[in-house]
Amino acid sequence: MENCKTGKRTFLFGKPPVISHWASVAGKKESEGPLKHTFDITEKDAYFGQKTWEQAERKMQQLALKTLLEKAKLEYRDIDIAFSGDLLNQCISSSFTLKNMAVPHLGLYGACSTMAESLILGAMCVAGGFCKNVVSMTSSHFASSERQYRFPLVYGGQRTPTAQWTVTGAGAALVSQHGKGPVITGCTVGTVVDLGIKDANNMGAAMAPAALATIRQHFEDTSLSVQDYDLIVTGDLGQLGKEILLTMAQQEGLQLGGKLADCGTLIFDTLKQDVHCGGSGCGCSAITLCGYLLDQLQNNKMNRILFCGTGALLSPTSSQQGLSIPGVCHAVSISGGKVWNS
Amino acid sequence: MENCKTGKRTFLFGKPPVISHWASVAGKKESEGPLKHTFDITEKDAYFGQKTWEQAERKMQQLALKTLLEKAKLEYRDIDIAFSGDLLNQCISSSFTLKNMAVPHLGLYGACSTMAESLILGAMCVAGGFCKNVVSMTSSHFASSERQYRFPLVYGGQRTPTAQWTVTGAGAALVSQHGKGPVITGCTVGTVVDLGIKDANNMGAAMAPAALATIRQHFEDTSLSVQDYDLIVTGDLGQLGKEILLTMAQQEGLQLGGKLADCGTLIFDTLKQDVHCGGSGCGCSAITLCGYLLDQLQNNKMNRILFCGTGALLSPTSSQQGLSIPGVCHAVSISGGKVWNS
Repeated sequence: MENCKTGKRTFLFGKPPVISHWASVAGKKESEGPLKHTFDITEKDAYFGQKTWEQAERKMQQLALKTLLEKAKLEYRDIDIAFSGDLLNQCISSSFTLKNMAVPHLGLYGACSTMAESLILGAMCVAGGFCKNVVSMTSSHFASSERQYRFPLVYGGQRTPTAQWTVTGAGAALVSQHGKGPVITGCTVGTVVDLGIKDANNMGAAMAPAALATIRQHFEDTSLSVQDYDLIVTGDLGQLGKEILLTMAQQEGLQLGGKLADCGTLIFDTLKQDVHCGGSGCGCSAITLCGYLLDQLQNNKMNRILFCGTGALLSPTSSQQGLSIPGVCHAVSISGGKVWNS
Repeated sequence: MENCKTGKRTFLFGKPPVISHWASVAGKKESEGPLKHTFDITEKDAYFGQKTWEQAERKMQQLALKTLLEKAKLEYRDIDIAFSGDLLNQCISSSFTLKNMAVPHLGLYGACSTMAESLILGAMCVAGGFCKNVVSMTSSHFASSERQYRFPLVYGGQRTPTAQWTVTGAGAALVSQHGKGPVITGCTVGTVVDLGIKDANNMGAAMAPAALATIRQHFEDTSLSVQDYDLIVTGDLGQLGKEILLTMAQQEGLQLGGKLADCGTLIFDTLKQDVHCGGSGCGCSAITLCGYLLDQLQNNKMNRILFCGTGALLSPTSSQQGLSIPGVCHAVSISGGKVWNS
């Protein structure tokens, strides 16, 4: 099979690229949650030994990348392209991570959809015949996000019930031409959807319509249905966003119940960990994927998942100017080795 | 020929994608400069009829995209993927441009290298067999950049002699599988280079080492030399950055003199227009390419150029934390029809 586009916005890979290795770094709160045993590195110090939270976030990406390369027994020079981005203004976590590392770098901005976006572009570069080994990587940090998007932490602002908790973590995946591991068989690239939500503390509601649009399009574009997947896992809609997505899907006759999970509710115990609606941030879907989800596929606990990275494309400036919050969702179809060896 | 990687970080396209159409929108100062006759749309109102400068920047991207599609006689639904990014925090110009347009969108952050980055990814998607028509697009706005990166405009701060003037403009290119026009034959993806410059008002100096690294690598990776190009054109090093690049190259035995141009010095008359070291911003290289440069190739005034988008990957936060400014440069080899019909 050749690489191709099918339907309106789904892309299929002739020779599916392999996610041969993955690595994750997580902060204190994440290491106390339900996925605590799935991370490669956990750290109690929010500063990761650095002077600032922004530099801590860079440190996490550096650790994730280093761990990934150690697992893969590769050197930095073996990376053909590193695709990465993050939430900080001008994506400084990502660019400073790769400073003077001699690694070709293409920077992305997809808000919390970045892990999915970087996998899609990595897979396209590999399947297109350009690269052997691509790194897809992202990060977020609770404290650097809070002070950039919301309030200084010392202000001690009260969080609203619909707020989500930005995950402190970095995830990295190696997308390769050869090797063993789960494979990326296709992807559906999202469009920017905005139904008018203006509450920057309710990002799940803002992103749910984009998630529905992409999931629906994925099934329209392909011969697949919900039943073909073991799990349809959204990036970080959180508890409320997930419920909105379920309801909206049901209204359109799409039954996701039983198959739908959300990284924002997988990563934290929303009842016990005081995170309100759950996790968010680029790191949320990144470390849930580059740990729990890929492990499940590797170990044949699941055969096929639709990994749907969701992003809220707002900025404090756009919110201050009274604009609503556009959302985006990119879906990546990932299959375990079991399916593809048959 | 198949798509491939050659050398350390150069990628060649088996069937070179065509830049079949391009469009540019420019502000008042740009419309008074040397390239004034090459823009599709010029506007004296810095607000472009909008309420804020940020929304003016979005309006420019919308106009560039609309003009591009009109020229190409395409509809929004014909775009397989739009690659775009900008300088504003969280790239809001780009995401709000595509809001509810049903156009698949992958967001980029490459600072002022974004035009080159979007061309590279567009070309990879087309040559990889995934897309027929991809849009590569970016923008910047003097006023939205000044207040985000530097001072409120009303403060009337004195600009330093090495400062550059952020271009108000948006450029868009259609990268296609078929059609007539200049073709993208290869590209060299940049690495993040930081030699320790900390002055955020001297970005040319910060980016020059990255430009040299990528240009040198392009020649090392390919059988090409400076003589094979009519022009090697950097994104926006400005007057000082260009001189630094020439000197550094000469010290390494690479003679760029006579072949080197910079979009930052092409777009403004640096002596008469009070822009100090010249133009900068994503829009600078975007509207110089999507006008003057592609016109020159189309009209056989030039046969082959190396378009080297340069980006300074700083943020106000990284500068305030005392960090130096990493630079990046992505090179795109573009040939006019003349060369490739022979």
